[in-house]
Amino acid sequence: MKKNPHFYPVILAGGRGTRFWPLSRKRRAKQLLALDGKHTMIQQTVARLAPMAAPSRFWIITNDDLRPAIIRQLPRLPSNQIIAEPAGRNTAPAIGLAAFLLLRHDPDAVLGLFPSDHVIADQIQYRATLARGIEIAAAGENIVVLGIRPSRPETGYGYIEVGSSDEGALQVRRFTEKPDFDKAKQFLDAGNYFWNSGMFLWRADTLANALREHLPNTAPLLEKIAAAYGTRKFADTFRRLYPKCENISIDYAVLEPRSAKGEAQSRIFCLPSDFGWNDLGSWTALHEHHVAKAKPGDGSRSSTSGSFALNAKNNYVHAPGKFVALIGVSNLVIVETEDALLVTTLEQSQDVGKVVKHLDEKKLKKLV
Amino acid sequence: MKKNPHFYPVILAGGRGTRFWPLSRKRRAKQLLALDGKHTMIQQTVARLAPMAAPSRFWIITNDDLRPAIIRQLPRLPSNQIIAEPAGRNTAPAIGLAAFLLLRHDPDAVLGLFPSDHVIADQIQYRATLARGIEIAAAGENIVVLGIRPSRPETGYGYIEVGSSDEGALQVRRFTEKPDFDKAKQFLDAGNYFWNSGMFLWRADTLANALREHLPNTAPLLEKIAAAYGTRKFADTFRRLYPKCENISIDYAVLEPRSAKGEAQSRIFCLPSDFGWNDLGSWTALHEHHVAKAKPGDGSRSSTSGSFALNAKNNYVHAPGKFVALIGVSNLVIVETEDALLVTTLEQSQDVGKVVKHLDEKKLKKLV
Repeated sequence: MKKNPHFYPVILAGGRGTRFWPLSRKRRAKQLLALDGKHTMIQQTVARLAPMAAPSRFWIITNDDLRPAIIRQLPRLPSNQIIAEPAGRNTAPAIGLAAFLLLRHDPDAVLGLFPSDHVIADQIQYRATLARGIEIAAAGENIVVLGIRPSRPETGYGYIEVGSSDEGALQVRRFTEKPDFDKAKQFLDAGNYFWNSGMFLWRADTLANALREHLPNTAPLLEKIAAAYGTRKFADTFRRLYPKCENISIDYAVLEPRSAKGEAQSRIFCLPSDFGWNDLGSWTALHEHHVAKAKPGDGSRSSTSGSFALNAKNNYVHAPGKFVALIGVSNLVIVETEDALLVTTLEQSQDVGKVVKHLDEKKLKKLV
Repeated sequence: MKKNPHFYPVILAGGRGTRFWPLSRKRRAKQLLALDGKHTMIQQTVARLAPMAAPSRFWIITNDDLRPAIIRQLPRLPSNQIIAEPAGRNTAPAIGLAAFLLLRHDPDAVLGLFPSDHVIADQIQYRATLARGIEIAAAGENIVVLGIRPSRPETGYGYIEVGSSDEGALQVRRFTEKPDFDKAKQFLDAGNYFWNSGMFLWRADTLANALREHLPNTAPLLEKIAAAYGTRKFADTFRRLYPKCENISIDYAVLEPRSAKGEAQSRIFCLPSDFGWNDLGSWTALHEHHVAKAKPGDGSRSSTSGSFALNAKNNYVHAPGKFVALIGVSNLVIVETEDALLVTTLEQSQDVGKVVKHLDEKKLKKLV
């Protein structure tokens, strides 16, 4: 793979991933868990990008709770490029800061934005798609988003409506929020909708200009923070100015208004992606991912089933080191940690976040 | 309560109670667990008999696996009266040995036989029933059995068929094994059937004579063992002779043949008992017992429900020290120990013994 010398992966790793409680915690969020294989989600994210960029080119935006663990998990990455926001301000300021930081050293920087907690089955295809996206992004004021071809009427994702084909990619017509079920079904049937993967490619200057246009108050704050980077004033400047930034997602701040300019003018392109993407949004999604991966008879499902099962099937079990006996139960999610035990159903596991909400409210800090 | 100076409680505590796995283990059988309140089942058994007999009058028959824990749990009882069988030989030799031991010091001994793992709600009524039973037993060659008025067509218990009333008790016509469901329903409807509680009262000499008659090979062995008790030869004699005893229950060996003599001749009496007896035969029975005991709003069910529940009801949870979150699950039994986790349903919890059978077969000794 020929590396683009201006490509910089920026990984967003500030999420909490409460739907993987009790395994996920404030200081051990989903991206720090080895949910699928030996390596953690963020380690896998870095590993699959590693053939495209040297370790010194990676930037990670996270928070104070997670930064120490991320540094431990990614010892080859420069720790001063693992940045902890002094306060969560959603994605626009985080990505904007990355753009201004990169611009200081490389006016031709192409910034790739990546979530830190997804799985991707086909890495060859993934990197081929990215390489194509980098080309398109590097060429000018284009914004490239990786769109996932939808396989079900999912109501938990944002959708991208595409129009005509241009430069080998599809022109984006509109970003739409999480739809209701009927709408999601329409999208699926229409054929010109993709799931928003959260993976974007654009030149840093394109992004910086977009921020100056759409977030005129926030952009100068981010420029000042970036200017202080590497100096003794950085920590103080960051702590003082960053909380003053607008609390807004990049979708709302930049992508939606820009796409409203019309598909020809907006220059946002969707690259249809077919590399086995899965965001593992819940215990149930993880279970289905494991089941789909397991080849019959290879025993690879054993880690998710009980040690003894009688009239029991299709249960997801995580209870390392324990002998687990299941009798007469099916479609359950059972997750055990040192201090907590979750028992729910495959159907209702998306409600696990409500436990964390409850624990937050009750100030049961040890458990979150 | 006026104590009968010849009454000796003999508690059978050699059972394994596998249906309470993973809490119950070989060295921590059901009777050693605090399933209902602060005290263990055997401690409760001794405590409710304590007003009727001094600690020095208690005898416990158990095995080598359980004896150390029983001695620890019952420090006021003479440890040399906590006897470990060198081999399990069912109830007839165990009870017979107790009879021969008591006879050496008290020819008028009245032996009360008690399981070690049942709960009794009304202790006043319980002791009043026992006192009446001791009177009947002490009077001569009578055998008294405490019968529980059946409340459902239970197929897991033995039944006692009674005939006419005599001496204020009911004459026993027949002991019957665990019936099938249709038969159990007939028994319930007939009105003259009681559950066999396993609690018996009889003079030691009555029992000794019955054993000499019905187990002519075993009785002399037990007499020899009893004769060695308190001497240096005891352990050796016990180990040598006891395994040669017949492996048979007191029901088969004595009660059934004796009852076959006819209700007038057999002199077996059933005392109808109404003191809230429950043998807690499974996690489900324990759950129902807790639910029945709990007064609404007094919080006493909290130990058996999750710490967080959403769309969850009627679950039995035992996971001490853990925060347990239940979402969308009902009628489950969830029991967690340091090394094991059981998840089953209230309907199928009687199959828990099959886990222990599996562990025995796989020689997973640490887990049994």
